[in-house]
Amino acid sequence: MAAWGERLAGVRGVLLDISGVLYDCGADGGRAIAGSVEAVARLKQSHLKVRFCTNDSQKSRGKLVGLLRRLGFDISEDEVTSPAPATCQILKERGLRPHLLIHEGVRSEFDEIDTSNPNCVVIADAAEGFSYQNMNKAFQVLMELENPVLISLGKGRYYKETSGLVLDVGAYMKALEYACGIEAQVVGKPSPEFFKAALQAIGVEAHQAVMIGDDIVGDVGGAQRCGMRGLQVRTGKFRPTDEHHPEVKPDGHRWGRDPADRTVLCPVCAGAA
Amino acid sequence: MAAWGERLAGVRGVLLDISGVLYDCGADGGRAIAGSVEAVARLKQSHLKVRFCTNDSQKSRGKLVGLLRRLGFDISEDEVTSPAPATCQILKERGLRPHLLIHEGVRSEFDEIDTSNPNCVVIADAAEGFSYQNMNKAFQVLMELENPVLISLGKGRYYKETSGLVLDVGAYMKALEYACGIEAQVVGKPSPEFFKAALQAIGVEAHQAVMIGDDIVGDVGGAQRCGMRGLQVRTGKFRPTDEHHPEVKPDGHRWGRDPADRTVLCPVCAGAA
Repeated sequence: MAAWGERLAGVRGVLLDISGVLYDCGADGGRAIAGSVEAVARLKQSHLKVRFCTNDSQKSRGKLVGLLRRLGFDISEDEVTSPAPATCQILKERGLRPHLLIHEGVRSEFDEIDTSNPNCVVIADAAEGFSYQNMNKAFQVLMELENPVLISLGKGRYYKETSGLVLDVGAYMKALEYACGIEAQVVGKPSPEFFKAALQAIGVEAHQAVMIGDDIVGDVGGAQRCGMRGLQVRTGKFRPTDEHHPEVKPDGHRWGRDPADRTVLCPVCAGAA
Repeated sequence: MAAWGERLAGVRGVLLDISGVLYDCGADGGRAIAGSVEAVARLKQSHLKVRFCTNDSQKSRGKLVGLLRRLGFDISEDEVTSPAPATCQILKERGLRPHLLIHEGVRSEFDEIDTSNPNCVVIADAAEGFSYQNMNKAFQVLMELENPVLISLGKGRYYKETSGLVLDVGAYMKALEYACGIEAQVVGKPSPEFFKAALQAIGVEAHQAVMIGDDIVGDVGGAQRCGMRGLQVRTGKFRPTDEHHPEVKPDGHRWGRDPADRTVLCPVCAGAA
């Protein structure tokens, strides 16, 4: 493999996934991943533009940023691209009134949205909210629509909580897609529109950007399809089998400069700062 | 369309779906569908061989037959082909020890099965059992296996309860398939092995048999792919859009002789008795 400097030539901006890269979420509020607080600080001191690009749909941006700041991260709400605000914009543009199958933590993002007499279903990572009853209700709303519209905030397969791996919204999206014979519209990574919105916010072109994430398909593969470089960290939902993924080969694996330490310091900083 | 007599020429046996054809299940025990008790009685008085072929995986055969008998049906346990006993046979043959994500009502069918130190996951229509916690547990067991094996008792998309349409096991099977990147092995309709076992039990060849069901894909399409004829009733999960299904065209639509009555008497009896 080429040296970092070479592989990161021309990089002007970095998109950073949050869950599994900066911290592992959990019922206890979550834990910062070793070295990630320092790596973010170092990135922000460099000449690189930084944008946080997350599919987290359990929390409003305000709550997510508050949590990360308490864990020591230098991050503010206007640095975050997340799927709930992007979804609200789509709902307004298309005159859609959603039935919401979402986590209570993100409900405030939908405060301005008309949810009466629903003509679509929006699902997000509802966690405990993915009960049999709630899934049936969302299914029934879709089946009663002449043209069923399902919008999914991301399509992640699973993610890592402090207690272990848990199912993400993508699994439940697939359940509804199959039951209704429809295809969901995904708002979030790996949707190209979503990556582009994040790049636009920092004024960086795709070929000048690196996405750093723990999801080999959603983060790395998605970014590469948009013309970015993609690094997969070895934390969060990373699994050794990802290194032999049949379709996606990351441009790098380490979110860390020292081979003995998988997480401390950023290869982008090391190569480019 | 050809007359019934012509379309049913050479028919010697009938496979009858249960839920949505004989009765609509529900928390109240369910309700017989109008005319179906009489239609079954009439079929059994004819020269035709009859076999009940169900994907019901919420109840043991004993409980299902007890319920149907209370609703007035002439049915006994040894006339029923259902997925739980077929699954137990596969588990024993392959030395598989399942983690069970199933309904309490069917657990007794698995009494003889070793469930210690699981090396596969079996899911059935668990209904309320499809909680976020239980789905995560099944997912985690699969992710810890080197070669994850998922066996699903049927892959129905949804079915009709007296309270309305509800998600069937197939939706949750798809969720686990997607999350784990695997393909489930389906025991039940539309698996050809399952239809063949039902035909074998009555000594009838596929070309001599009619399957009567409410599922356009699982019952009608599945039976036709096995060389049977397939009728779709207009009860249970039937929806008007099924009549324009892009892939499956039933050999008949009526489980009833009188066009004004969708359910009374059987076209097979009418044509062949």
